[in-house]
Amino acid sequence: MEFRLIDRIRELTAQPRDDVRLGIGDDAAVLAVPAGQELVVAIDTMVEGTHFLPGTAPADLGWKALAVNLSDLAAMGATPAWALLALTLPRADAPFVDGFAEGFAQLAQPHRLALVGGDTTGGPLCISVAVHGFVPPGQALTRAGAQVGDEVLVTGTLGDALAGLYALREPPQDDAHQAILRQFLIERLTRPDPRVAAGTALRGLATACVDISDGLLADLGHICEASSVGAELEAAQLPRSPALRELHGEDESIQLALSGGDNYELCFTVPPPRLADALAALAEAGCPVTRIGRITEGHGVRVRAADGSELTVTMKGWEHFA
Amino acid sequence: MEFRLIDRIRELTAQPRDDVRLGIGDDAAVLAVPAGQELVVAIDTMVEGTHFLPGTAPADLGWKALAVNLSDLAAMGATPAWALLALTLPRADAPFVDGFAEGFAQLAQPHRLALVGGDTTGGPLCISVAVHGFVPPGQALTRAGAQVGDEVLVTGTLGDALAGLYALREPPQDDAHQAILRQFLIERLTRPDPRVAAGTALRGLATACVDISDGLLADLGHICEASSVGAELEAAQLPRSPALRELHGEDESIQLALSGGDNYELCFTVPPPRLADALAALAEAGCPVTRIGRITEGHGVRVRAADGSELTVTMKGWEHFA
Repeated sequence: MEFRLIDRIRELTAQPRDDVRLGIGDDAAVLAVPAGQELVVAIDTMVEGTHFLPGTAPADLGWKALAVNLSDLAAMGATPAWALLALTLPRADAPFVDGFAEGFAQLAQPHRLALVGGDTTGGPLCISVAVHGFVPPGQALTRAGAQVGDEVLVTGTLGDALAGLYALREPPQDDAHQAILRQFLIERLTRPDPRVAAGTALRGLATACVDISDGLLADLGHICEASSVGAELEAAQLPRSPALRELHGEDESIQLALSGGDNYELCFTVPPPRLADALAALAEAGCPVTRIGRITEGHGVRVRAADGSELTVTMKGWEHFA
Repeated sequence: MEFRLIDRIRELTAQPRDDVRLGIGDDAAVLAVPAGQELVVAIDTMVEGTHFLPGTAPADLGWKALAVNLSDLAAMGATPAWALLALTLPRADAPFVDGFAEGFAQLAQPHRLALVGGDTTGGPLCISVAVHGFVPPGQALTRAGAQVGDEVLVTGTLGDALAGLYALREPPQDDAHQAILRQFLIERLTRPDPRVAAGTALRGLATACVDISDGLLADLGHICEASSVGAELEAAQLPRSPALRELHGEDESIQLALSGGDNYELCFTVPPPRLADALAALAEAGCPVTRIGRITEGHGVRVRAADGSELTVTMKGWEHFA
């Protein structure tokens, strides 16, 4: 474990937590999982050129490297607690580290997440974060519990992040209104807000849950496969931001909503008798939510257009090494 | 979390553990820390060109990526349980993944360590592993407890890994005896055997402990700094392998033993009244150990040559971004 870079991050992300018996600075951290809680752990990596464009602001990277991991905890219904950071940098770069730490801390603080360990190395820019959270025994939300007849719901709006990536690649926009719309989409890409409160609110209510990292079709497909069911979605119901609709129109915004990854909303299933409770719990958590379809027999995800015909999906969800 | 590569690794590293409530294949793993145990976590990264030479055998990388992390657990006196793997590869490369998984599994199995999550991404070759282990509350070995008068000890032999790196860079050796000596040193570099049994045996006996990743002087320096003490070593006592002595001679082998990193032996301190118990515990664990000096007042590490004069250290321990 190296000290200079990690110390800088520690200064900005210090979170006093009683359950951290020994934090950064030894060969490993010593932690106490609260009695009667299970531990939920995930790891995610971001690589320059694969997950973000060269020149991305370090603060955005710090935020997002943590956000994509908190989103995994959210999808399990877990409460975040601790993180480990492995940061590989081409050279010791104090402004980069300061910016990265600032973005990481901005997201860590509201979640009371403590950075408890790290490793900084020299090499091509690559960021791995491992996160740890808690869930009451047996209450983790998995992909495997969806039942035929369950409602399918999503939080927030879909497709914004992919549209934000398109916007980043386009030349600057002279029109002020268009520029604002694009900026909204770009921020959905660079500063995703993981649905942690929604995830914990859904404990005991959702039968299955995923976060949308690969795209709605791909990730709902994971629920269908793990639960041995199918799903049918109503294209017109897919929640889309005003910016996405205005810049991309009805048909294209539906395709983006179905296939756009890097989105970090939750997609989950709820049996009809629990629907009212789930909607109330999410309202309490301050999280917008939309019913988009139903779990069916069979397998795979089908999408109905407004006229009742089956919609053809023209984009594919993004997969590594696909 | 992507499936194809991680699944392959899972097949080869399957470890049935009751405490894994939900393993690879969902957004996160769900784990149960045994009642009355603290959790010990560490993360370490290996980058091509920084930590290993291009062309290193994938099986050696799989072994070592886990070994350097298990060594961190060993230094804390923790018993290994679970790992997360973040693997970034230039391209989907089945032979690489098979070899990597094989090496990882070879080391995971005797330690009953389960791979519980992972992420595979495209990009320059980079491997981060996070490990989790258990320790009884308050019994973790840290860097901070060394007391003036404590004995300083190390497991195994020192300096072999750096000499192995030198050997790798030299042209092939015609002399069969020399080639065998070099091969021994190279295997100490590529297949370090983390001192897990020694670490747990030292609980309640050692006052401070580190693993030697940066070199003896640097890592014992960490103990001295964290414990606000100094240390004095006897150069002649430094344990060195026959291969190191024969290939590098007395003086150079001492320098290699003092400064060579990537070594993954443990350096620890024991109060004289507990020395016999510590030696017995390590003998029981099957771990060779050598007394090399004492903790003193002051700060920093001094080394005495055989004639009693202070030894000048000519090599520096390796540090990232140094």
